[in-house]
Amino acid sequence: MTDSIIVQKFGGTSVGSIDRIRAVAEQVIKTKEHGHSVVVVVSAMSGETNRLQVLANQVDTLPSSRELDVLLSAGEQVSMSLLAMTLQKLGHDAVSLTGWQAGIQTDEKHAQARIIGINTDAINQQLQLGKIVIVAGFQGITEQGNISTLGRGGSDTTAVTLAGYLGAKECQIYTDVDGVYSCDPRVVTAARKLDTIGFQDMIDMAKYGAKVLHLPCVEFAEQHNLPIRVLSSFSPLQGTLVKAQESSGGVVGVALRRNLMQITSNNETIDKLVAQCNEQELEVFRVLSKDQSGVVVSQVDLAKLMQVIHEEAVHIDDVCSVSLIGRSNLSSIQALEALLAEDDIEIVSHSLCERHTMMLLAPEYLDKAANIIHDVYVDQNELLSVSKRRVS
Amino acid sequence: MTDSIIVQKFGGTSVGSIDRIRAVAEQVIKTKEHGHSVVVVVSAMSGETNRLQVLANQVDTLPSSRELDVLLSAGEQVSMSLLAMTLQKLGHDAVSLTGWQAGIQTDEKHAQARIIGINTDAINQQLQLGKIVIVAGFQGITEQGNISTLGRGGSDTTAVTLAGYLGAKECQIYTDVDGVYSCDPRVVTAARKLDTIGFQDMIDMAKYGAKVLHLPCVEFAEQHNLPIRVLSSFSPLQGTLVKAQESSGGVVGVALRRNLMQITSNNETIDKLVAQCNEQELEVFRVLSKDQSGVVVSQVDLAKLMQVIHEEAVHIDDVCSVSLIGRSNLSSIQALEALLAEDDIEIVSHSLCERHTMMLLAPEYLDKAANIIHDVYVDQNELLSVSKRRVS
Repeated sequence: MTDSIIVQKFGGTSVGSIDRIRAVAEQVIKTKEHGHSVVVVVSAMSGETNRLQVLANQVDTLPSSRELDVLLSAGEQVSMSLLAMTLQKLGHDAVSLTGWQAGIQTDEKHAQARIIGINTDAINQQLQLGKIVIVAGFQGITEQGNISTLGRGGSDTTAVTLAGYLGAKECQIYTDVDGVYSCDPRVVTAARKLDTIGFQDMIDMAKYGAKVLHLPCVEFAEQHNLPIRVLSSFSPLQGTLVKAQESSGGVVGVALRRNLMQITSNNETIDKLVAQCNEQELEVFRVLSKDQSGVVVSQVDLAKLMQVIHEEAVHIDDVCSVSLIGRSNLSSIQALEALLAEDDIEIVSHSLCERHTMMLLAPEYLDKAANIIHDVYVDQNELLSVSKRRVS
Repeated sequence: MTDSIIVQKFGGTSVGSIDRIRAVAEQVIKTKEHGHSVVVVVSAMSGETNRLQVLANQVDTLPSSRELDVLLSAGEQVSMSLLAMTLQKLGHDAVSLTGWQAGIQTDEKHAQARIIGINTDAINQQLQLGKIVIVAGFQGITEQGNISTLGRGGSDTTAVTLAGYLGAKECQIYTDVDGVYSCDPRVVTAARKLDTIGFQDMIDMAKYGAKVLHLPCVEFAEQHNLPIRVLSSFSPLQGTLVKAQESSGGVVGVALRRNLMQITSNNETIDKLVAQCNEQELEVFRVLSKDQSGVVVSQVDLAKLMQVIHEEAVHIDDVCSVSLIGRSNLSSIQALEALLAEDDIEIVSHSLCERHTMMLLAPEYLDKAANIIHDVYVDQNELLSVSKRRVS
C-alpha cells in the first residue's frame, strides 16, 4: 500500500494522439513508481469535443443540453480507455471510470453542472487493488441518472474536487504552459514563471484574468488546503506550486483581462446596476474615475443589464484591465499613472483594495501598458524613481 | 396513452450520417403517429466502431476487453444522442439512454457479453411521459458496474431482447436489405423476398448460413412468440415478417454457408470429435458421405480440435454447404444429385432431417449449385422431371 494519493489531470492536447497518450502514461508511471497511488483525470482528445459539437450543430443550432451532454461525454470515454490500454501495455494495472462510474454527482444543470458530491468508493476500491485509476474529466451524473457535463474548465474542476474528496496529497494540472507566470507570456515576454504562489494571490490572478487555472478550482483548493501543481506535459520543468503561504508583501503578478465594459453614471444609477448584477449573479467590479463612479462588467453580461441602462443616463466604454496582484499603494499607483501618461496611456478608472489593484484602460493600450507595468512592478519589484529607469 | 410498443432497430449504415439520421427520425415519427409507443435501438454510425478499433490497435494488438468495451460503447452514445436531437428538432419529445441507463444487465464476459436481464423501469417511465426512447444497441452493464458489449449482431440482440422484456407488439429490424430472401440475392439473382416466414424456418435459415438475422435473436423471438419484421431503411417496401406460422410443407428457402471444414474418419473417431465439440461448445454437424461418416465444423473452430485430429487417421476437406430449409425427401435429393452431376458438381456428403437438408460440396461449386438448387426447389417449388426443365 502507498501512503499518499496524487491526482494528475491531463488536458486535450496532452492526450491528443496515441503518441501523446503514451507520453502521459510514462509520466503517470513515474509518479506511481515514486510510491504514490495515482488517479488520472483526462479530457477528450483535442479536436474531439469540437468534432462532436459540429455534428450536433448540423442537427440543431441549439440542441437540447441533456442530449448534448450525452454526446460530448463520449469524448472522454475514448481518451480514458486508450490511456488505460496504454498503461496496461506498459505493464501497469489500470482501470478507466466514466463520471457515473467514479461517483461524480452533479446538479441537473446540463452543460454547466456543478459537482455536489463524490462517492469515492469505486475509486478507493480500485486503488486498494493497486491499480492506476483513470477518471473521465468534465462529466458526472445527476440525481435523476442523467449524464451531465461541467462546462468551461470542467476537467480541472473534476481533478481538484476529486483530490479534495480523496484527501490527495497534491493535485497536478498538466497543461500546455509550464506553470503560473507573473503575467501572460504571450503579451509580456519578460514574464517569469513563479515557483510558488499563495492560494489568495492565485484566486486574485484567476479572478482578474489569468487563464491557467479556473477560479472555482482555486477556491475549492484553498478551502480544502489542497496544493495544486501546474505543470507542462511537454516539459520536464517543475511548474508552479499553488499552496497556503504568506503573501510576499509586494506585487506577485500582473493579470490581464479583455472584453470588459465600463458603465459610468451618477451614484444612484451605479447602485441600481450593482443591485441588478447581484440579483442576476453577474460578476461586477465598482471602479472610480477622476470625476465619476462606475462599474465594470463583462461584455457578454452587458445585454442582461439593458433595462436599467435604457432607463438611466449612462456612459458605456469598451475597456480592458491590468491588475496588480499583491500589495501596492495609492502613491505608487499615482506615480505609475504619471509614467504611463508619458506614453499617452490613460488609466480611465481603477479599483483599489488591500490585496490587488485593477486599472481600466482602452483596449488598444493593453499590451503596451502590461509590459510597462510588469517591468516596473515585477521585473524590478518596486517603484523607485520610475521615470529615471524608463530610458529605453 | 398508446396501447402497443414497437421496437425499431437501425444499424450503422442507417445512422451513418446526419442526413440518414434524419431519414431514420422520419421513419420513427411515422410509427409514433400511427399511435404506437416507440423504442428505437441504434448501432454506432457506420465506420465509427472501426475508427475506435483502429485507435485501440495502435496501442495494443490485443487490448484489454474491459477497456475496449468502454471505448467502443462511446460509438452508440454519439448516434443515439444525435437521433434524439433530430427527433426534438422535428418537434417530438425524445430521450436517449445508454445500456446502463436502459437497465440492460449482462454477464461479465467482455466483448461477447450475454444479456441476463433488463430492468425496464427507466424506459417505461419515459414511454409513459409520451417520449420516444432511444437505446444504445450492442452495450450493457455487468453486475460489477462495468460497461460491456455484446459482440457480433449485438444491436439486433438488444432490440429483440428489449422487445421481449417490454412486451412489444413487434420488433422491427431495419437493415441494408429489404427483407429475408429465399436465398442470398448476391449469389442467386432469382432469389425472392419472402412476405412471411415461420420462426422455425427462420432459425434454420440463420443456422445454415442466412446472415440477415442472428440465430440467438430468432431463438429468443420464438421463445417469446415475438414477431420480428425485417425491413430496409432505404426502401418503403413491407419487408418480411418472421412469426409463429405453420410450415408451408415444402422448401421455403436455400441457405448458403462458406468456410466450413469436413472431417471424415471411422465411426469411433467421429464420435470422439463430436464429444470434443460438445465439451467445448463448438457447433458441429454430423454428415454422411457415400462410404464414410464425418463431421462438419467451421474453419475457425478447427484449431480447437487438433489434439483429436493428430491422434487419429482423419481426412480433412474445405467445404461449403447448400441447405434446403423446409421439408424435402430423400428421393428428391437423389434426383437433385443426378441433376447436379450433369454440371460435374458432386455433393460430397449430406445431413438430412425432417425439416432441412444440408448438402456439402467443394467451395468452387457453391454459387453454381446454389442457382441450380434454388431454381428447382424455390422457383418451381417442386422437383418434377427436373432433367426435362434443365434445357438451358
